[in-house]
Amino acid sequence: MSDQKHWSAEPYELLRVQPGFRLSEQRTDGTPGFDGDKKSGEKALARGGERLADLQEQLFACGREGEPRSVLLVLQAMDTAGKGGIVSHVIGAMNPGGVHYAGFGKPTPEELAHDFLWRVWREVPAAGQVGVFDRSHYEDVLIGRVRELASAEELERRYGAINAFEKELAQSGTAVIKVMLHLGKDEQKKRLASRLERPDKYWKFNPADVDERLRWDAYQEAYQVVFDRTDSAYAPWFVVPADHKWYARIAVQQLLIHALEGLDLEWPQPDYDVEEQRRRLEQS
Amino acid sequence: MSDQKHWSAEPYELLRVQPGFRLSEQRTDGTPGFDGDKKSGEKALARGGERLADLQEQLFACGREGEPRSVLLVLQAMDTAGKGGIVSHVIGAMNPGGVHYAGFGKPTPEELAHDFLWRVWREVPAAGQVGVFDRSHYEDVLIGRVRELASAEELERRYGAINAFEKELAQSGTAVIKVMLHLGKDEQKKRLASRLERPDKYWKFNPADVDERLRWDAYQEAYQVVFDRTDSAYAPWFVVPADHKWYARIAVQQLLIHALEGLDLEWPQPDYDVEEQRRRLEQS
Repeated sequence: MSDQKHWSAEPYELLRVQPGFRLSEQRTDGTPGFDGDKKSGEKALARGGERLADLQEQLFACGREGEPRSVLLVLQAMDTAGKGGIVSHVIGAMNPGGVHYAGFGKPTPEELAHDFLWRVWREVPAAGQVGVFDRSHYEDVLIGRVRELASAEELERRYGAINAFEKELAQSGTAVIKVMLHLGKDEQKKRLASRLERPDKYWKFNPADVDERLRWDAYQEAYQVVFDRTDSAYAPWFVVPADHKWYARIAVQQLLIHALEGLDLEWPQPDYDVEEQRRRLEQS
Repeated sequence: MSDQKHWSAEPYELLRVQPGFRLSEQRTDGTPGFDGDKKSGEKALARGGERLADLQEQLFACGREGEPRSVLLVLQAMDTAGKGGIVSHVIGAMNPGGVHYAGFGKPTPEELAHDFLWRVWREVPAAGQVGVFDRSHYEDVLIGRVRELASAEELERRYGAINAFEKELAQSGTAVIKVMLHLGKDEQKKRLASRLERPDKYWKFNPADVDERLRWDAYQEAYQVVFDRTDSAYAPWFVVPADHKWYARIAVQQLLIHALEGLDLEWPQPDYDVEEQRRRLEQS
């Protein structure tokens, strides 16, 4: 673990979906493994950001030298759970030149004219990149199931297709981390209400958010099925309590650090003669 | 100007390429308009980062509501001038979800099979985005001229094509800002040498950097022609002294803030009935 201070256990272990996992039994307001308050959490975020930026630079350097490794963070959650804040405050600490962000909204007609994985394939991270999916192919088995946009048979097919896709990614060098930000229903109500209080927040509110909220239980069930069917050793799921935004940020940050450290990166060897280049430079 | 402290004049005015501008007369080690040292520069960068992030969020919000406006920052420079640091430290302060970064390297065979603007068009920012070009279509008239990769006639054609392209961008709602980081030749030598001193920096060095360095004067001339031919009211050029990295960062940050402020953004009006949605939410 990169940051022993305050962390009594590794989020990678604590928040990992295990066999027999039940989403309905998970608290949303905890701070598992972190023995500190919001203020120490914010300090931990700043420290972790430096570590993350260093690791990402190393990944980028390796990618430039032809190593095929990359990282993909998949973010899923109910509205207002804090995906945007994770992107700003966790992903934002890394060099934008090495980050590939992709937000997946309502599919376009062109996207709908292809298999559901088509638009996702186009956005997978290249060698050396940290990819971030803000929503993802999981929408196709979440809203797809809740709103019955696909038949039961098609949904079955999709779980299998997702597993095959993620296995392919992992085998070609991408460390895949899937995160569900787990928000409490009451907390969501508060957050949605706050968007209706200030004119500079109105744009973040969408009446469809309430429509989806009215299907809360069905979404929780759809997530449970997702965990049951698509958690795997090569693309593990993590459920991160999200009522405390500060906790969710440091937890996801630690997951990313863990994934990057797991790549055992080393700085690339030069493919030129260092002494010879020093001489050339000196004479230039 | 968003940050009166230490700035005695607006970088947007001071660093703007003016009629009769001569690159050869510009100092690379100055800090025009900023009455402070490195430490106050770093504080200014932190303050400016918050302002920039706020403006970018507003641009993003407007984009979501269908307003066509966006911003494009074009970064050009000799090697080691600090483009990467600008991307990390200036662009990095904004939400990655609203930033579109594109690095342009040596063209691929597919890119070479198209007009030089083809790959550039694919990367222009969408409505609501801040786009960043790390190198750009200007390579095609810089290395293109210095290395004689294109005929004189073709180069002539490209200046015109670039002006037409940038005019189209501006007229469709994109505020274009073009920055040359202006580095001293001695400073470049130091920076290249430092990359040959540490194994964790070797990957940043490329023997081709010395090849280009040997053509320093030809590049300076090529930049002069670029300014003469492609500076325009709709897509202005700025030359930023870059020997002091901290100065170049706050200067480019101020240019971006100026461009965003110039859009006169307002928070979008809600396209739903706020009271009605409050009631729906309350009952949910």
